Amino acid sequence: MTVHESTWTCPVPRVPDLIQMGHGGGGWLTHRLLERIFRPAFGNPLLDAQHDGAILERGSSRLAFTTDSFVVRPLFFPGGDIGTLAVNGTVNDLAMCGARPLCLSAAFILEEGLPLETLQRIAESMRRAAATAGVVIVTGDTKVVERGRGDGMYITTTGIGTIEHSRTIAPSSVRPGDVVLLSGDIGRHSMAILAVRGELSFETTLLSDCASVAEPALALLAAGIDVHCLRDPTRGGLATTLLEIAQTAGVHIHLDERSVPVDEEVRAACELLGLDPLYIANEGRFVCFVPEAQAERAVGILRAHAVSANACRIGEVRADASGALTATGILGTERVLDMLSGEQLPRIC
Amino acid sequence: MTVHESTWTCPVPRVPDLIQMGHGGGGWLTHRLLERIFRPAFGNPLLDAQHDGAILERGSSRLAFTTDSFVVRPLFFPGGDIGTLAVNGTVNDLAMCGARPLCLSAAFILEEGLPLETLQRIAESMRRAAATAGVVIVTGDTKVVERGRGDGMYITTTGIGTIEHSRTIAPSSVRPGDVVLLSGDIGRHSMAILAVRGELSFETTLLSDCASVAEPALALLAAGIDVHCLRDPTRGGLATTLLEIAQTAGVHIHLDERSVPVDEEVRAACELLGLDPLYIANEGRFVCFVPEAQAERAVGILRAHAVSANACRIGEVRADASGALTATGILGTERVLDMLSGEQLPRIC
Repeated sequence: MTVHESTWTCPVPRVPDLIQMGHGGGGWLTHRLLERIFRPAFGNPLLDAQHDGAILERGSSRLAFTTDSFVVRPLFFPGGDIGTLAVNGTVNDLAMCGARPLCLSAAFILEEGLPLETLQRIAESMRRAAATAGVVIVTGDTKVVERGRGDGMYITTTGIGTIEHSRTIAPSSVRPGDVVLLSGDIGRHSMAILAVRGELSFETTLLSDCASVAEPALALLAAGIDVHCLRDPTRGGLATTLLEIAQTAGVHIHLDERSVPVDEEVRAACELLGLDPLYIANEGRFVCFVPEAQAERAVGILRAHAVSANACRIGEVRADASGALTATGILGTERVLDMLSGEQLPRIC
Repeated sequence: MTVHESTWTCPVPRVPDLIQMGHGGGGWLTHRLLERIFRPAFGNPLLDAQHDGAILERGSSRLAFTTDSFVVRPLFFPGGDIGTLAVNGTVNDLAMCGARPLCLSAAFILEEGLPLETLQRIAESMRRAAATAGVVIVTGDTKVVERGRGDGMYITTTGIGTIEHSRTIAPSSVRPGDVVLLSGDIGRHSMAILAVRGELSFETTLLSDCASVAEPALALLAAGIDVHCLRDPTRGGLATTLLEIAQTAGVHIHLDERSVPVDEEVRAACELLGLDPLYIANEGRFVCFVPEAQAERAVGILRAHAVSANACRIGEVRADASGALTATGILGTERVLDMLSGEQLPRIC
C-alpha cells in the first residue's frame, strides 16, 4: 500500500487504484468506474443511454435486455431472499424500460459447503417470484467456487422483455413541466436487511418491499399515459436515481421531501443510524415521470395495484439545465442533494 | 456433519447434502443438481431441451438466449483471460444453438482490493474478443464483495443471437447414421490452465484454444449442410458432451479415439497427471452431427476457417437406443465411456 503523503493538498477526491466496497454502491465511485473502465472499453450508444437495460431494435419490434448480479448478505431476510430479489430485480429493470418481462436466465455461483437445502429453498422462491411476475426462467448455469471464495451463493439474472408501444421511455425523454410520481413508501428493503444483520438496536416487524412492479408500470402504458421515464430507486436510493435522471436529461428535478412517504419505523431506524431515507435502497418501488396534465390520472392507475397503492406525487421537473436535484425539506427549507461517494450499506442487493 | 455409518452397505453413490466442488464440474453431480433442484423448480420445455441455451419463438423469428458465469482461476492464463473466456464462451453457446451472436450483457462481481488496472485489462480483452466475434456488449452490472468473499472477479455473460434458418439444431435431432465431426484438437484450454497454476512439472508453450467458433458453425448452415446438432465440449470435455447428446437423443455414439486429434504436449501432460484428454475442457472447439452423405463437404467448409483448420471425422451415431458412448481406443480395443462423478479440474472456466 502506497502512502499518499500529499493527499491533504488534493482539492478533488482521489480515486483509489484498488476496488473498494464503495465501487459497488451505485454512487459516485460506481459512476467513475463506468466512466473510466467500462464505457471506454464497451462504449456504444446503447450503453451510453444510462438506462437500466438496453433496447434492441429487431425489424419493427423492440426488445429490452438487462442483467444484474445479486450478492445480498444474508441470503434470507424479512420479506424475501436472494432468489426473490434476483427475479424481481431483473423483472423490474425490464419494466422500467417500458417492457413486458418475458423470460429470464439464472446463473448461480455456489460456494463449496452450501447446504443443498438452502439452494432448494431459494430455487423455490425464484419459481414463485417468476410465476407471480409472469416470467419463465428458460436457461441457466451453475459454477462452484472453493470455501472462502464466495459467500453461500451469488445469482446473476438476465431478462428479455417485449416493448409493445412506440414510446421512448428513458432519462433523455424527461421534460421540464413533468411531474415525478413515486409508487409507495421508501426504505423498507434496506431496513429489513439491517434488521436481520443485527444492526438495529430495537425490534422491528419491517419487511423488505421486494416485489415485481411490472403490473402497475405496464398499466400506465396500457392506459395511454404519456410516460417519459420509469426507474426503480434501488442502490443509492431515491436521491441517486433522481440525480442520475436529472444529469442525463439536463434538467433540474425538485423534490418535495414532505410528500415522500416514509414509514415511521423506517424513519426512526434511519435517525438512529444516521442514514438518510432518500439514499437507501428499495426493491419494490419506482418513480415515474409524466406530464402535469396526466399526473392525477396516473396516480389513480397506480393506486389500483396493491404494490403501488400508496403512489403519490413527490416532485417536478424545472427548466434550468443544471442537472441538479433539490428538495424542500421537512422544515420547509431547501437543500441540494448530491451523489454519495461510496455506499451507506454494502451488499444490500 | 452427520456420520453415515451405513454408507458401506449403500449400493448407489450417496448424494452429499452440501455443495461440493464436483457440483460445478459438468459431470454426474452437476446433472443431479439440475435434476433434483433446478428442473423441479424452473421446469419448462425450454429447460428440458438440454441445450446450451433457450430458443425463443417471436412471431416468425427465433432468438437464442444463453448465460454462463465464469470463475476461472487464475484470471490470466496463456492464450486468454477471464474476459476472453466470458465473451467467447457465451458467443459459442449461441453459435451452438445455430444462432448468429448479436449482443451480450456482462455482470461483474468484483472482490474488494482488486487492482483497477486488472479490471481495465480484462475489460479491454472483452472489447477485443467481442469485436472479433462481431458482438456488442450492450448492458452490464457491477457488484463488489468484501475481501475473502470472492476471488478477484467473477463475470457472468448472457447472450442473444438470431436464428436465420428453420432447422432444429439440438441433441434431439441427432439420428442413427449421422457422422460426428470435431473442429480441432482437444485439451489445450485445460492444459494451459494447469500450466499457469504450476501443476505441470515441465515447461510448456501450450496456449488455451479459447476463441469464437461462430464463423465456421454459421458457415456450415450458410452452405446448406443439414446440421443436426452442434455442441462445444467445455466442462467435462468431449466424452461428457457426447454422452449428454447420446442420452438426450436416445442413440449410441461410437467414437474412433484414434482419430481424435490431441497435441503431443497435451497428451504427455495428461499421461503425467493421470487425466483422460476426452474428459478435459476446451474453449474453442465444437462437435457437429451431420448426415454421412454431407460429412466430407462439411469437413471441407470447417477447414477453410483458421479456428477449425484441423476439423475431422471422429465417430458415428448407431441405431441402438442405449444412450451409450463407446470408443475404439489407441490399441484397437473398445471401451464404454461413462460420465465422471465430479470434475478432474476445478474452476477451469
